[in-house]
Amino acid sequence: MAVYTDVSDDALSSFLAEYRIGSLVAFRGIAEGVENSNFSLRTTQGDYILTLYERRVDPADLPWFLGLMRHLAAHGISCPLPVAGADGQALRLLCGRHAAITTFLPGVWPRRVQQAHCRPLGEAVARLHLAGAGFAPRRPNALGPAAWPPLMDRCRPRAGEVQEGLADELDAAIARILAAWPATLPAGHIHADLFPDNVFFLEGKLSGLIDFYFACTDLYAYDIAVCLNAWCFEPDFSFNVTKARAFLSSYDAIRPLGPAEREALPVLSQGAALRFLLTRLFDWLNTPPGAMVTRKSPLEYLRRLRFHLGVKDFRDYGI
Amino acid sequence: MAVYTDVSDDALSSFLAEYRIGSLVAFRGIAEGVENSNFSLRTTQGDYILTLYERRVDPADLPWFLGLMRHLAAHGISCPLPVAGADGQALRLLCGRHAAITTFLPGVWPRRVQQAHCRPLGEAVARLHLAGAGFAPRRPNALGPAAWPPLMDRCRPRAGEVQEGLADELDAAIARILAAWPATLPAGHIHADLFPDNVFFLEGKLSGLIDFYFACTDLYAYDIAVCLNAWCFEPDFSFNVTKARAFLSSYDAIRPLGPAEREALPVLSQGAALRFLLTRLFDWLNTPPGAMVTRKSPLEYLRRLRFHLGVKDFRDYGI
Repeated sequence: MAVYTDVSDDALSSFLAEYRIGSLVAFRGIAEGVENSNFSLRTTQGDYILTLYERRVDPADLPWFLGLMRHLAAHGISCPLPVAGADGQALRLLCGRHAAITTFLPGVWPRRVQQAHCRPLGEAVARLHLAGAGFAPRRPNALGPAAWPPLMDRCRPRAGEVQEGLADELDAAIARILAAWPATLPAGHIHADLFPDNVFFLEGKLSGLIDFYFACTDLYAYDIAVCLNAWCFEPDFSFNVTKARAFLSSYDAIRPLGPAEREALPVLSQGAALRFLLTRLFDWLNTPPGAMVTRKSPLEYLRRLRFHLGVKDFRDYGI
Repeated sequence: MAVYTDVSDDALSSFLAEYRIGSLVAFRGIAEGVENSNFSLRTTQGDYILTLYERRVDPADLPWFLGLMRHLAAHGISCPLPVAGADGQALRLLCGRHAAITTFLPGVWPRRVQQAHCRPLGEAVARLHLAGAGFAPRRPNALGPAAWPPLMDRCRPRAGEVQEGLADELDAAIARILAAWPATLPAGHIHADLFPDNVFFLEGKLSGLIDFYFACTDLYAYDIAVCLNAWCFEPDFSFNVTKARAFLSSYDAIRPLGPAEREALPVLSQGAALRFLLTRLFDWLNTPPGAMVTRKSPLEYLRRLRFHLGVKDFRDYGI
């Protein structure tokens, strides 16, 4: 659920006057996304999404995100395309926030992941990685391994409020994961947040990817590990190896995974589970009561983390 | 912000299969409305709104609401038109909720009310009252004067948490308002919740009215009193008599207000302020922390109520 900033009529009119996309027909807040305020915007020329960038998005990163989206769209990836104003700029201010208009992407994200979603997902992630290769600017992963110990430091004093002994368990996991983290693996631009609500399907086909605001330059196989966490667990937290196999084999058919990438899948999956566990834990401990945000339980990722810590071999992921 | 129920892919597919409105193109939760879950739905045939009816809407009332909307749309009022399925029914079940698809209404609701909005609003309310006259079924106002004392009983024990002395002040106000409530005035179907977020404008013209789920059969002038509360106070709670005059005179030009209706405007406005104060107070005291709903302060309506209690004469409203 996300509309943190409401946009007044006057502000919207002035903002739209800077574009050449026709006149306003409809404007409604979208109850999806967590980090930013999103509005569906219809003009006499078509449909768009207006995003106001809120907390956690560093304004200095916005040109990189929009540049990556433009690059990907130009290289055959179906993703929102930033719309430039009459001045050629896609990024401007609205209600004190940085804001951009992007094209509207048809499709519906899967509320319940089916095996049939995982094969097109694998293809799309591989194509995304290949398409991103020509985009020169780099953005370090602000939520990568180096960020976990300081994030843990901020959560540790109150982690026990969520579950007794959680701090000790996470400290041990962080130590183990960081010690085993691969020093070198093929890297490039990754989405880093490819949860089902960021992947649209239309009549059984993947119609596009959205929400590139955690994208960064990091290990390709880490993006895969995020997807294993986000797409391959059942509601009871059992790991569905059939989904994982469909996802990994279709990825591998387009961008073959090297032996070192395969070997690293368990620790990368542990790290991906930990990353979402830590940010959810932080948010859980720091979301004021009454805030207009669904607090997502960090413990769902503890269950995933424990699974990955118990994996003996990358073959357990079905590849 | 309102999406209380998420709709799975399978459930949505089965639901849409009961309609003849083309195939799914896009589906997104709308971050507006408080009582129900609303989704913007695009199919190959056009745009629609899917509403899942949640708390506070009595399912037994739904046929009345949809019937009124159909009647109003057929009589020239721009409002959402319920879409019937292949079986002729507009109302069915989805995810354990009653649900209906309505047509999409272009327009944007005014985030900041200007004087220029008040004249078209007055016209639209008067036309709504006239157009509703031919719709025979009646629905009592479940949040009318008879509902206030029991609602107050449920709020009284903890009203002091919101403001010291609030219970005594409200008890006195209820007694005074009920004693002065008009016994007979012209009545018919009213919207009863015409806040700015339920009124769409497009290029300066009123383009439609939405959200008829508090509509009922009650005094026409009570609907006017709701609008005076919702549209004619400034952010500092001062009453803007210029807006009130624009609203009332344009209403009066289409459906002339009788002397008794004019005389009753102060007590009706007190009652309307009290009604929203009481339901907000109840929600404030009963919204669990972390719920995905913005808690609206009841005290905004205490300020309005005090203003109306201080009004000596209906002429203070600018008519």
